[in-house]
Amino acid sequence: MSDKIRIGLAGLGTVGATVAARLLQGAVPRAKLVAVSARDAKKDRGVDLSAIDFVADPLELVAHKDVDVVVELIGGENSTALDLVEAALKAGKPVITANKAMLTAHAAPLSDLSVGAGVPLAFEAAVAGGIPVIKTVREGLAGNDITRLCGILNGTCNYILSRMEAAGLSFADALKEAQELGFAEADPTLDVSGADAGQKLAILSALAYGVAPDMDNISVTGIEAITAADIAFADEFDSVIRLVGTAARSGNGVYHSVEPVLVKKSQALAQVLNELNALSIAAEPLGAMMLQGPGAGGGATASAVLADIADIAAGFGRPLFDMAVSDMTESASQNAPASEFYIRLALADQPGSMAKATQILAENGVSIEEVVQRSSESDDSYLPVVFITHQTEKPSLDAALAALEQQSEICNAVLALPVFAD
Amino acid sequence: MSDKIRIGLAGLGTVGATVAARLLQGAVPRAKLVAVSARDAKKDRGVDLSAIDFVADPLELVAHKDVDVVVELIGGENSTALDLVEAALKAGKPVITANKAMLTAHAAPLSDLSVGAGVPLAFEAAVAGGIPVIKTVREGLAGNDITRLCGILNGTCNYILSRMEAAGLSFADALKEAQELGFAEADPTLDVSGADAGQKLAILSALAYGVAPDMDNISVTGIEAITAADIAFADEFDSVIRLVGTAARSGNGVYHSVEPVLVKKSQALAQVLNELNALSIAAEPLGAMMLQGPGAGGGATASAVLADIADIAAGFGRPLFDMAVSDMTESASQNAPASEFYIRLALADQPGSMAKATQILAENGVSIEEVVQRSSESDDSYLPVVFITHQTEKPSLDAALAALEQQSEICNAVLALPVFAD
Repeated sequence: MSDKIRIGLAGLGTVGATVAARLLQGAVPRAKLVAVSARDAKKDRGVDLSAIDFVADPLELVAHKDVDVVVELIGGENSTALDLVEAALKAGKPVITANKAMLTAHAAPLSDLSVGAGVPLAFEAAVAGGIPVIKTVREGLAGNDITRLCGILNGTCNYILSRMEAAGLSFADALKEAQELGFAEADPTLDVSGADAGQKLAILSALAYGVAPDMDNISVTGIEAITAADIAFADEFDSVIRLVGTAARSGNGVYHSVEPVLVKKSQALAQVLNELNALSIAAEPLGAMMLQGPGAGGGATASAVLADIADIAAGFGRPLFDMAVSDMTESASQNAPASEFYIRLALADQPGSMAKATQILAENGVSIEEVVQRSSESDDSYLPVVFITHQTEKPSLDAALAALEQQSEICNAVLALPVFAD
Repeated sequence: MSDKIRIGLAGLGTVGATVAARLLQGAVPRAKLVAVSARDAKKDRGVDLSAIDFVADPLELVAHKDVDVVVELIGGENSTALDLVEAALKAGKPVITANKAMLTAHAAPLSDLSVGAGVPLAFEAAVAGGIPVIKTVREGLAGNDITRLCGILNGTCNYILSRMEAAGLSFADALKEAQELGFAEADPTLDVSGADAGQKLAILSALAYGVAPDMDNISVTGIEAITAADIAFADEFDSVIRLVGTAARSGNGVYHSVEPVLVKKSQALAQVLNELNALSIAAEPLGAMMLQGPGAGGGATASAVLADIADIAAGFGRPLFDMAVSDMTESASQNAPASEFYIRLALADQPGSMAKATQILAENGVSIEEVVQRSSESDDSYLPVVFITHQTEKPSLDAALAALEQQSEICNAVLALPVFAD
């Protein structure tokens, strides 16, 4: 049928194979798979591609006379994936990608190519997998002023934190379990450091606020320092710990952070368990809403790619961010909103150390709402203590933490997490 | 600017006034408000409409030379609203409406007008208020096979059930509170009977499965029979009661129901509180996802209308259901999926009545998983008893209930609710 858009698909991993299978089943009536490219032409992927043109070099898809739209599922932020996407856009062929690392590392030139020539570059699969967060932020809330986005954007971290919570595991053991189940990579750094969530947040912020993606604007803290004791303390405050990416209006700009936060169990983000992702959106006049679902995995990511294909097939493709990065004028703010904080430290088991610690907090303008001190089962000379502060400005907190860290004779292992506010 | 689409807005209640105010603020850059119609031209609505053309008769918006798109926020399923929408579609002018009653009562002729001539008829605001459920089902999950939709689609019912749960109120007292707070109408029948949720479910099912909207296909039970005792019993099973609209593949068609169901507190739908709405979607290859947010209210509904305006302004308008109702071939199924059930009854406080009741259940193939019997504080001669059944076919349940109801000397006040399954 010549009225169908014809798809050239590069990359036949789990996602690519699922997309191919669904297209061959007619799941997107107005689209047709015509060509694929992958490293190994012969590998069994559970889908019969014998009737589909196979090209060894993905770049051949660009010049391929039957290909109208290129789907890039190769991955990696440079080299082949980037070459393919740039070449396709230059040739005026719409592109669909799941490649968040590429989109954030090369946001400006890709937006120039896509916006400049009005060639669609669709990326629903790049953020939160199968949950249509891009469509929701860009289209579903068009006409709103978004005031805050808070997302659980990394399934690996959420799995680890959920398992620490449910089974009392250490970070290391929960990570190991996640690796065994395929929820974490052999090298988990990109996930547990918060960097992956940061890339996704940068993409969302470009759409929601028009802030040019720049990882330097995002305060990123991973989950490596979270201990089983923190999870247990959080439970005493009827809370859990979640890695939350936040992009919120603050002062004259938008403040971005990815960090572990204390979330009350009654709040919706606390109910997001295991490998699920979620995005909570506050907007005017809407109010607040939340989406949750599978943020990764072959089926979920394929779902997002198929939705992009359907949009482009319907003539509803959009250029990257709808706006060239060079035209994005909204500024990133360095001012973290004031917050309550959870401060955990190990306090020397000797007279006067609690008095000294609380004095340091007070001197720096940090006022305490609750304290929990536990007796240790071992005969450690340091005992874990947790303070929950009243609303505190971030500079006051930072000064207090720095002062505490200098008092190594009375305390160590200092960690502070914001308390999530509705 | 002549490249903006020009909006004619009929109906200036809370939603209409918010839409007008946002358009005047430039919230949708490609759209411009040019004409409004309302009963009272002079009423203060908190928005300065002095520069906007006012027409007394909404139908004048159709012939108005400056109006490109008509927004119908009059409400009511017949008369003016329907006349306006039909006239606009006949004139080739795209229409945006929040009017679920009109869409379900006149689905076939409206789809003929819209689909036949390819004139957009957008209705995001008709279901779940500000939550973009229409966009998610139609676009965000394009390329998926949807297997089940389960929604909390009526904020009034959810508010009443939540308050019965949180404050131990009776249905009547919770309804009264909802009315005082503006969450329920003076005549709440349409809401508490489940009819409103049924209309929304019919619209979702047309989109998700291609089932022609027909209220006769939907098994609708309201929440009027739910007592404070049921809420307390549910709590003993670590569950709550929610009014859930379900459209699920079953047998060779799609089964539709709106009914109160028992939902485990650990399930996401149980966390949806007060006036919020939610939609849980199971689809292949996606998996499962959920959206929640404000299902009613001026701001939320205006948000959905503004999103529809932005889509049409971007050239992305779609005809009603994308398919004429006369072309919808998917059939509605009368076969409820098998389920566990909560059966509550009042059992005569006399020897043998429990034996008789359980015998009736067993004779009808209903097997019991749990029983809770409470001693009554009063000296009633009937005591409340609850059974949770194993997986049971609906015809078996219905036969058992009918048999129980004939045994009025041993039991009365029989009520059965399905137990929600993930």
